[in-house]
Amino acid sequence: MHRTRDKGHMLWIDLRDRYGLTQLIFEEGKTDKKLIEQARSVGREFVLKATGKVIERVSKNPNMPTGDIEILVTELEVLNPAKLPPFLIEDNTDGGDDLRMKYRYLDLRRDAVRANLQLRHKMAQQTRTYLDGLNFIEVETPVLIKSTPEGARDFVVPSRMNPGEFYALPQSPQTFKQLLMVSGFDRYYQIVKCFRDEDLRADRQPEFTQIDCEMSFITQEDILNTFEGLVRHLFKAVKGIEIGEVPRMTYEYAMKNYGSDKPDIRFGMTFVELNELAQGKGFGVFDEAELVVGICAKDCADYTRKQLDELTDFVKRPQIGAKGLIYVRYNADGSLKSSVDKFYTEDDLKQWATRFEAQPGDLLLILAGPADKTRKQLNELRLEMGNRLGLRKPDEYSVHWVLDFPLLEWSEEENRWFAMHHPFTSPKPEDIPLLDSNPGAVRANAYDMVINGVEVGGGSIRIFNRELQARMFSLLGFSDEEARHQFGFLMDAFEYGAPPHGGIAFGFDRLCSLFGGADSIRDFIAFPKNNAGRDVMIDTPSTISDKQLNELHIRTVAEPK
Amino acid sequence: MHRTRDKGHMLWIDLRDRYGLTQLIFEEGKTDKKLIEQARSVGREFVLKATGKVIERVSKNPNMPTGDIEILVTELEVLNPAKLPPFLIEDNTDGGDDLRMKYRYLDLRRDAVRANLQLRHKMAQQTRTYLDGLNFIEVETPVLIKSTPEGARDFVVPSRMNPGEFYALPQSPQTFKQLLMVSGFDRYYQIVKCFRDEDLRADRQPEFTQIDCEMSFITQEDILNTFEGLVRHLFKAVKGIEIGEVPRMTYEYAMKNYGSDKPDIRFGMTFVELNELAQGKGFGVFDEAELVVGICAKDCADYTRKQLDELTDFVKRPQIGAKGLIYVRYNADGSLKSSVDKFYTEDDLKQWATRFEAQPGDLLLILAGPADKTRKQLNELRLEMGNRLGLRKPDEYSVHWVLDFPLLEWSEEENRWFAMHHPFTSPKPEDIPLLDSNPGAVRANAYDMVINGVEVGGGSIRIFNRELQARMFSLLGFSDEEARHQFGFLMDAFEYGAPPHGGIAFGFDRLCSLFGGADSIRDFIAFPKNNAGRDVMIDTPSTISDKQLNELHIRTVAEPK
Repeated sequence: MHRTRDKGHMLWIDLRDRYGLTQLIFEEGKTDKKLIEQARSVGREFVLKATGKVIERVSKNPNMPTGDIEILVTELEVLNPAKLPPFLIEDNTDGGDDLRMKYRYLDLRRDAVRANLQLRHKMAQQTRTYLDGLNFIEVETPVLIKSTPEGARDFVVPSRMNPGEFYALPQSPQTFKQLLMVSGFDRYYQIVKCFRDEDLRADRQPEFTQIDCEMSFITQEDILNTFEGLVRHLFKAVKGIEIGEVPRMTYEYAMKNYGSDKPDIRFGMTFVELNELAQGKGFGVFDEAELVVGICAKDCADYTRKQLDELTDFVKRPQIGAKGLIYVRYNADGSLKSSVDKFYTEDDLKQWATRFEAQPGDLLLILAGPADKTRKQLNELRLEMGNRLGLRKPDEYSVHWVLDFPLLEWSEEENRWFAMHHPFTSPKPEDIPLLDSNPGAVRANAYDMVINGVEVGGGSIRIFNRELQARMFSLLGFSDEEARHQFGFLMDAFEYGAPPHGGIAFGFDRLCSLFGGADSIRDFIAFPKNNAGRDVMIDTPSTISDKQLNELHIRTVAEPK
Repeated sequence: MHRTRDKGHMLWIDLRDRYGLTQLIFEEGKTDKKLIEQARSVGREFVLKATGKVIERVSKNPNMPTGDIEILVTELEVLNPAKLPPFLIEDNTDGGDDLRMKYRYLDLRRDAVRANLQLRHKMAQQTRTYLDGLNFIEVETPVLIKSTPEGARDFVVPSRMNPGEFYALPQSPQTFKQLLMVSGFDRYYQIVKCFRDEDLRADRQPEFTQIDCEMSFITQEDILNTFEGLVRHLFKAVKGIEIGEVPRMTYEYAMKNYGSDKPDIRFGMTFVELNELAQGKGFGVFDEAELVVGICAKDCADYTRKQLDELTDFVKRPQIGAKGLIYVRYNADGSLKSSVDKFYTEDDLKQWATRFEAQPGDLLLILAGPADKTRKQLNELRLEMGNRLGLRKPDEYSVHWVLDFPLLEWSEEENRWFAMHHPFTSPKPEDIPLLDSNPGAVRANAYDMVINGVEVGGGSIRIFNRELQARMFSLLGFSDEEARHQFGFLMDAFEYGAPPHGGIAFGFDRLCSLFGGADSIRDFIAFPKNNAGRDVMIDTPSTISDKQLNELHIRTVAEPK
């Protein structure tokens, strides 16, 4: 029972189920008196069984799919009564996050959340339709696998039958899908749960779902075409949207023009570099900077002092870390006014404006400093401006690829190279000679799909040769022994006839939330965990019995040994 | 490269991929000499890329789908060489189980195993097609849940962020699917991994896959119809078989007539009870027995002494435990001869034969003892006779329901009641008064689907009322505190408007092996574990680092504390 309206001689009950609302009517003269009394006693969220006659409504409700009819009830049975729920079962509920999560089974009754799960179901269905149609075979890979500490932290499972030993839960089925390629299953997919024991930032879940895919006898081009096809199919089938061509840009281009490897290209405001124009005029901040770079905010020349201060505060926040923000107002009357007028003439500024292709009325926002850092800071400012200017519309979609990622990235903390994607990613053949001389310059056959500034999928062409794989492990600081212990089975497999192969994995939770036009993935997961990794509804994790601990040959310790 | 044939002036290569074999031909006069030499140097399992012209074969092979054509090769590229595999990649391989599992990626190349995984894929596809068509929604339930020791042993996962606490892996999504019903998702399904940390008997896996389903606002009849529909659809879509009506029998009937709650009804040989006819004639074994019961083996009167001794040895094996076996030969000439002629006249035996509806030429096999035990022993003998007589044909399918299981079973060891299905199963309303007076007589709204003597699925109508659920927990020996701690969320949920609901789960691995006509589930799982719960290919479970143990606030102990 969703709600009632009682006009004394008439009483309506809106009956809610998964498919919508249906109005029951009880009317003096037409309905038995006792039945009206019974209907009156029914509370919110009672579970009802009603028998009656479907009749045409006198006053129809064109906003409801069932608004033309109602049911004149002849029998009413309360299948189960209900206590008053702790929050309203409405789109705009009065329940806070914690309460909603504790009573998730009630929260899931709300139309909005229910619709999210139905969207998710449809996304999974359509993913399968597309991939099945291309002869992909869904193969289940194991959940109890081996801990391989490269990458994120593993969840582990103590083995009762093998004392002192542990399984790990998969961070992805990576090695198994590669083995399936070695087995000759040339097109594999799986919609599969994966696990990472990471500190949970907002909107990260310890268990998450991937659309995991791999193909053999292919080039990178085949993969890009196949999987932009998947995303095109999903947009068409689920949202009725034609996304058109899927543009491609290199990692280098993305970093230079957007300061991000997952730029939101629903709007422009690409980076403009000013070094030659801005340096050598006596402004120390610019002169000493590796990079002077800015963006042009259309029609923002009339930003107030307060607004500009807000932007300066924004870039100076510790998470972003800029030292300051330089602005140039290109006023509507053609005059130019900047925060560095002391050092630059209006002519200088005019040249800047020309470089930015700015128009009168625009605002230039400029940062300076070390190149990589400054680009990342400007990326944040660009996204902030996109938000402020309403340029990041949730119902507008831009889909594109970022290609040619670096193979390796240097970790200052650990003083060693890490695989940017993972250790199985193939370097570009033409860059292999650089592996020894300049590893940081080696590009990978790796690609990410970006939708609206969110990385929704990523993959690579894999190494399929034992020597190259061994060399890669060695570059990443594995001893031969470690490499053999952790990944010997894969390197062995490469020796028994492994085809060229590559693949991709999409973050399914994120993809669903993007299709749902929402920022958070949590409401696209039936039973999510909170930021402490807890399910507050079932109250887990929780303690287990000494009997269980004994059987598993472990004990818990308050302090690390 | 699957195999070559070399006739000197001609050379053929059978190229194998997921879709079958294609013959390459290299022929003197038509093929470049160097290319022939190159082809000659290619070894088994090399990965090849061939370019050439599809031509009609001179001698066609009608046994191969591609037997009409071959490819006259103009270019050959070795994409990857291969070491000689440790066993033959053929249907009848020379590899033993251990070797095959260690090199599972090679084993999966064998046609038979590949076909099994393709069958599995098709089974999953068709399951989804059927259930999607009936408006079932697939919802992913969490894998990191709470340990609830009732039932089998849980696998657990130590929580890094919550020291001393653990997640458990689900033995089934039971409580979550019930909560989804409370949420109003009236038709749910999921093809989902489940986990049980049990000692592995042959053909049990620590992780296994279920087709898990639940429905609201239904009766048992609705569930039976919906899911015999699923199995009917699978047989039709996957094997082209019409299974016809799905018979139903009660648990009581099954036990009385077959001595099993999962009888193989591909053949008759149902039990015949002889107490009134056989007792009181001075044969102590029968006179003292609670039950004298037998089967009639058609056309087996000519069994030799040796064959009869084998059967006696069979029932006396410790796993079966009968004291002995009585036989009556109903000879072709109409005479009767038994192993108890000392106590019974031919007229007596004639009466038995009549009771069995035996014909001349038949053999009666009779056991005696405590009723339940004896029925179970006779069940084993019946199945053995079914095997010996070739009555259990793997390509013939009988599908039926067993209904009205007891709600509870008594554990002698623990001296308490256990739920026969699980604690959420509803008693039959008419039997609720017996819950206090005679719990063992209470029947449940529980049902199993049996195919060819294998339980492939089981389910029940659930309790959806807090009081009844609490009473059930109390009957099972839970204190109020324990019930609240483990299942409080579910009992709470029942108070906020829970619809009547019920469901079923099918063992997907087993269902696939039945459809594949195989006894073992292992070859229908891509990467199975062995009987010690090990994956010998990736060599797991394995030790983890002290750093990992410390982070997880656990340590391993050689001896239980």
